[in-house]
Amino acid sequence: MAKNSFTLQELAEYLDVAFTGDPECRIHGISSLGNSQPGTISFLSHSRYRKYLTETHAAAVILPESEREHCPVATLLSTNPYLAYARLSALFEANFDSDVAIHPSAVIAPSVVLGEGVHIGAHAVIEANCELAEGVHIGAGSVIQHGCRIGHHSHLKANVTLYHHCEVGARTLIHSGVVIGGDGFGFAKDHGRWVKIHQLGRVIIGDDVEIGANTTIDRGAIEDTVIGNGVILDNLIQIAHNVKVGDHTAMAACVAVAGSAEIGKNCAIGGCAGIAGHLSIADGCTVNAMSMVTSSIREAGVYASGIPLDKSDSWQKNAVRFKQLDDMARRIRVLEKALQQLTDKVENIE
Amino acid sequence: MAKNSFTLQELAEYLDVAFTGDPECRIHGISSLGNSQPGTISFLSHSRYRKYLTETHAAAVILPESEREHCPVATLLSTNPYLAYARLSALFEANFDSDVAIHPSAVIAPSVVLGEGVHIGAHAVIEANCELAEGVHIGAGSVIQHGCRIGHHSHLKANVTLYHHCEVGARTLIHSGVVIGGDGFGFAKDHGRWVKIHQLGRVIIGDDVEIGANTTIDRGAIEDTVIGNGVILDNLIQIAHNVKVGDHTAMAACVAVAGSAEIGKNCAIGGCAGIAGHLSIADGCTVNAMSMVTSSIREAGVYASGIPLDKSDSWQKNAVRFKQLDDMARRIRVLEKALQQLTDKVENIE
Amino acid sequence: MAKNSFTLQELAEYLDVAFTGDPECRIHGISSLGNSQPGTISFLSHSRYRKYLTETHAAAVILPESEREHCPVATLLSTNPYLAYARLSALFEANFDSDVAIHPSAVIAPSVVLGEGVHIGAHAVIEANCELAEGVHIGAGSVIQHGCRIGHHSHLKANVTLYHHCEVGARTLIHSGVVIGGDGFGFAKDHGRWVKIHQLGRVIIGDDVEIGANTTIDRGAIEDTVIGNGVILDNLIQIAHNVKVGDHTAMAACVAVAGSAEIGKNCAIGGCAGIAGHLSIADGCTVNAMSMVTSSIREAGVYASGIPLDKSDSWQKNAVRFKQLDDMARRIRVLEKALQQLTDKVENIE
Repeated sequence: MAKNSFTLQELAEYLDVAFTGDPECRIHGISSLGNSQPGTISFLSHSRYRKYLTETHAAAVILPESEREHCPVATLLSTNPYLAYARLSALFEANFDSDVAIHPSAVIAPSVVLGEGVHIGAHAVIEANCELAEGVHIGAGSVIQHGCRIGHHSHLKANVTLYHHCEVGARTLIHSGVVIGGDGFGFAKDHGRWVKIHQLGRVIIGDDVEIGANTTIDRGAIEDTVIGNGVILDNLIQIAHNVKVGDHTAMAACVAVAGSAEIGKNCAIGGCAGIAGHLSIADGCTVNAMSMVTSSIREAGVYASGIPLDKSDSWQKNAVRFKQLDDMARRIRVLEKALQQLTDKVENIE
Repeated sequence: MAKNSFTLQELAEYLDVAFTGDPECRIHGISSLGNSQPGTISFLSHSRYRKYLTETHAAAVILPESEREHCPVATLLSTNPYLAYARLSALFEANFDSDVAIHPSAVIAPSVVLGEGVHIGAHAVIEANCELAEGVHIGAGSVIQHGCRIGHHSHLKANVTLYHHCEVGARTLIHSGVVIGGDGFGFAKDHGRWVKIHQLGRVIIGDDVEIGANTTIDRGAIEDTVIGNGVILDNLIQIAHNVKVGDHTAMAACVAVAGSAEIGKNCAIGGCAGIAGHLSIADGCTVNAMSMVTSSIREAGVYASGIPLDKSDSWQKNAVRFKQLDDMARRIRVLEKALQQLTDKVENIE
Repeated sequence: MAKNSFTLQELAEYLDVAFTGDPECRIHGISSLGNSQPGTISFLSHSRYRKYLTETHAAAVILPESEREHCPVATLLSTNPYLAYARLSALFEANFDSDVAIHPSAVIAPSVVLGEGVHIGAHAVIEANCELAEGVHIGAGSVIQHGCRIGHHSHLKANVTLYHHCEVGARTLIHSGVVIGGDGFGFAKDHGRWVKIHQLGRVIIGDDVEIGANTTIDRGAIEDTVIGNGVILDNLIQIAHNVKVGDHTAMAACVAVAGSAEIGKNCAIGGCAGIAGHLSIADGCTVNAMSMVTSSIREAGVYASGIPLDKSDSWQKNAVRFKQLDDMARRIRVLEKALQQLTDKVENIE
């Protein structure tokens, strides 16, 4: 796997930080401190990893000034080494975009408007009246239906599907298998049969969003489903119709958000959490993994639900008692009263 | 996004209902009552939204006769406005099917039988011995393997995969990313290694079914996996091998049904519910979202499981007690007996 | 659906087992004992199904010597009939591979190295510097990005996506919609905004692996995500970046494994289980369906969590008590102490 390389000085200038050591020292990649590799740069994200620092094999380490004395090799000095690592990671990513800007096998309707430097992969399909701004990249096999608009430098990987008239902002990254704009799950019942409610809204996705593999985001029933700016969604997430996700909110894999839920800004939703429909979650909430959210959360905080793991036989013994919980609570109350009465009686006897 | 438009009279005739107001009033779309838009038709699905009715901006509102007096604009009179809205929604859906009935880039085996008016999108693949009935629509990039049969006017969106010999009924809608007929998860163990059980059954899907994006339905091990007529499945659902889903049952997103489970007719399964294998669920059951179904449900009713959300620190305090539940139940019993004995003793003393 | 057929003697020789009955008896397929069909072979996997055996319609039944006396038809004698059935199932699977080894519509970079007998389906895309070993099969519409290596006789079904530089071992089967090598979910926070951590690792998949439809496996952040030999993964599973899954471990559908978790060898993870990041699970663990694993499991055993299903109104009554559990436990303790004191007092009175 081809790698880029840089001098220590080049990296320091890219991050705009000070450094110690040979400015010409060549860095060929990134390694973690616990498994550091010669010729790479590593980073100390927490002082508890200092034990790895003192015996590192890396050529250089990103760390705060306060840890510098413990480092036997070159350093980049940063108050936030993890963020510095994130920034450097972009430099070391291999770039394998095809030389061919628009592959001849792609099927592109004549009415499509293409900005400069647009890349369209093999067997991609771009239907009528789409607009792809400057630097947009459409991966092989992706299908972009009628009337979609994609902002500049957004990147759809291979085998993505956008239904008609969806909008994607700038610098947004959508991974393979994602389906955006499929019909929301809306039906009316007529004598025991389901009558489809045709979904007339769209999906509107902001700038600087990332959407993980095989995630699905349904179009709105009447109004639009909206994903704010800077939102990050992991893989296999379900966003139902008319959901709003606020700016800079993060969701881990396999979260499911039911219809018309409104998630605030700067929230963090743990993996596999389920969020019921027609509720709202305040800005800045953290919902732990596998939580069941069935009513609105009105103030920022950390929320959780679920049962911790146990040995199966022990779990089983306790789980059957769950169905007796209300009964147990009532019996405790009865005991308290009876004991009080008996205590009073005994005091009278005394 | 192009929109169709109709006169009030045309809509009333389509629904076969009475109306009030100007028959030539032109309706350009649908809006919700809470966010009604000029030139559109809205609907009053419950009297609790009457506050929006009195100040609506819509050109007309669908409502029952009893609410007519509260409506300042034209009306369509219906005893079930939500169902009437569902029916109208079909009229306002934009239709962007390509003019080209069969795209020249599609790969279609010579033995494929195509009915009249079949549409096949760009880069779709239809393998040998498939039969696509009248009016079938196959989206761009979809792959239909050997020997599949698809009933009339069924619609597979872009990037759908049907494995060999699966059958789809009439008027069925399958969304992007769906995989039908993948191998069921069947293996025998041989000295610590898994030996694959080749999956020899098929998937049989009924008429008037809808299947949401990225849902997977596995083929049967020996017999077939069967989805009944009128079933509606949301996104990212897993239907394992040999499952039977009864007619008109609905499943919300991310439900997982394990092998050989039999779900009755007219059931409603909430999002993220998990249904264990080799069990049956009676007709007419409602299973709430995120429920864990580990044994058969023998009678219709509403079922639930799980733990409601709480502040994380409070949840944690209670969750650790779950492992003491059996112990707590036993101690309550001991207390009850001891208190009874003591009460008897005190009565003797008196 | 075309079927193969074999004589009883051929099947006995294939399995290397003894048989009873006419060696020329022709077997056209497999049926289950509970629904046995003429002309097929069935199997008795447990003595509790013996009632079906005595009245079977199958032409032959696989069973242990000890059950032979109850069987009215021909037999194949095996100590492990279920395993024998698994082995026979391979013989009866229809094979519909196209005659064309490499479809002319496939887009294959000049630098790709193809072994003998490689099959590439219509509209597949194989990017530069990939190596596909002998007998590899790439389904229609699949996209294999730069520098991937796929071992001999591995089979990728239709519409699979492999991101660049991933490696797949020999005899591995990957189902439709699978995405391998998408970016892990890694971000650093900078003043309330997410900064992407580019994912520089790969995904390395072993030999004899099976991966179910629409499962996603993310590439590592720095090091690689690793799936061991003989691992079997069902549909819609999420494997996050840097996860290690040990040899011969099985995961049922919809399991989610968070970043850097290490799952041991020979584990069985039930459907919809959620496994938190940065923990390890010992070899040989069984985790029941829908379990929430939030800390490491250090010894083999069977583990579970969750709440069993109940009627909704009964569940609700008990579920509200969950938030009082800690309080209930404290009150039981108070009652125990108070009762003891009162008992002592009464004894003094006597």
